[in-house]
Amino acid sequence: VLHATGGREACGDMNNLCVVLVRTRNPLNMGAVARAMQNFGVRDLRVVAPYEASFREARSATGAGAVMEEAREFATVADAVADCRLVVGTTAARRRDLQQQVVDLDAAAPLHAAMAECRVALLFGSEKHGLTREDLDHCHWLLRITTEAEQPSMNLGQAAAVCLWALTRPPQQGTAGNSVTGMDPAGRAPAGDLERLGALWMEVLNAAGYVPPRASASTAAEVRRLLRRLRVTDTDTHLLMGMARRLLWRLKAGPRA
Amino acid sequence: VLHATGGREACGDMNNLCVVLVRTRNPLNMGAVARAMQNFGVRDLRVVAPYEASFREARSATGAGAVMEEAREFATVADAVADCRLVVGTTAARRRDLQQQVVDLDAAAPLHAAMAECRVALLFGSEKHGLTREDLDHCHWLLRITTEAEQPSMNLGQAAAVCLWALTRPPQQGTAGNSVTGMDPAGRAPAGDLERLGALWMEVLNAAGYVPPRASASTAAEVRRLLRRLRVTDTDTHLLMGMARRLLWRLKAGPRA
Repeated sequence: VLHATGGREACGDMNNLCVVLVRTRNPLNMGAVARAMQNFGVRDLRVVAPYEASFREARSATGAGAVMEEAREFATVADAVADCRLVVGTTAARRRDLQQQVVDLDAAAPLHAAMAECRVALLFGSEKHGLTREDLDHCHWLLRITTEAEQPSMNLGQAAAVCLWALTRPPQQGTAGNSVTGMDPAGRAPAGDLERLGALWMEVLNAAGYVPPRASASTAAEVRRLLRRLRVTDTDTHLLMGMARRLLWRLKAGPRA
Repeated sequence: VLHATGGREACGDMNNLCVVLVRTRNPLNMGAVARAMQNFGVRDLRVVAPYEASFREARSATGAGAVMEEAREFATVADAVADCRLVVGTTAARRRDLQQQVVDLDAAAPLHAAMAECRVALLFGSEKHGLTREDLDHCHWLLRITTEAEQPSMNLGQAAAVCLWALTRPPQQGTAGNSVTGMDPAGRAPAGDLERLGALWMEVLNAAGYVPPRASASTAAEVRRLLRRLRVTDTDTHLLMGMARRLLWRLKAGPRA
């Protein structure tokens, strides 16, 4: 029993957060993340392609707790975040290949704002490799914890505890609406809709001969990132789906007589 | 490799912090605390009366790291914190028997201020029982992490990570000098001096017949807490030691002729 105080009511905002563990290997780490979630009032744990034995072990552990018992399994990141309007990845900022904006946990006030309005997913990658480029393509932006240069790599359970504690804190005055651009989640389309829209646009682009052979995957990733950068709303999604369907029909039907 | 960024210089303040683990049982938890310390630039790990096998195991673990390798072992809390001018315990605030002021990690700006000026000890108790009353008597004040009422108990490694991350953050504007009283560490005497002063005063009190038989331990604890509440400085210590020595000599020598 460690330096903790009971009595705080679960913050409504934390109910809008879900934690997504992608390809986690170690059952102890899964358990540690679930425990930190219970400490800070986050209930919704989703696991993507876990090592099956680890997931079983974590769930059957004595004292696994309600969060672990109710954890849901998904085959892909896209499935896991389909109902979330804001998807935030966690990653080592030393990586050179990042396409998304990286935000320090200190400056995450806009994440608080998002949590007040819509469902938000916070993704953690595997212990060994973190989130892949493909995982990151599903993210609107990325979150980092500032650490020492000599020992930047954090333990998964500890990283989750730090993130969740920080998110239970009221944001600091004057940091809302800071340098992070395009973070207002109001009206953002759910990730599942973006995914369907992206797939339809890929069909259109393929039908139009836009996509060179062998570049299908990289183009799909490009479209995925584009839709998230653009902050597509529900209305936009509806409009763009209609356009895409019409284009696709026309492309397949051939030129008008 | 998880969402962490290299490049931050070690904060001078963090060099003034030492982490003290009291009667830790699990070598994995020791390792996790050491790892979090390396993540956040804290080098000085001290262990009090650890389970010997656990301490050996934690030190010999592959990748234990410099912090664990250089960890020092002490027999008592008093020995471990002797050179620290501010001693802060971590505890469950639900406890009813606390005599020290409890401060939320959010409101710990004065701890930042202390770390800028003098050596500060942060104590964590055993996984099962936390810090005992006797351990807490060595603390100037107590730190807590606010958690959910239903799951207040945090994992040791995660609690340490949250505390250390929070202490690397610049304190929020306007919270310095807040409701925490008597936290200015400037001029506070080192814990080792307070301990010697307390022991001498106990000798004096005993010699004067102040201490009832069988109340020696509780009186010693009372004196220990008193000296920490009083914010005794180096000058005060010197003065009080002199008074106590004189009193003791007189009490033992008997009344003046």
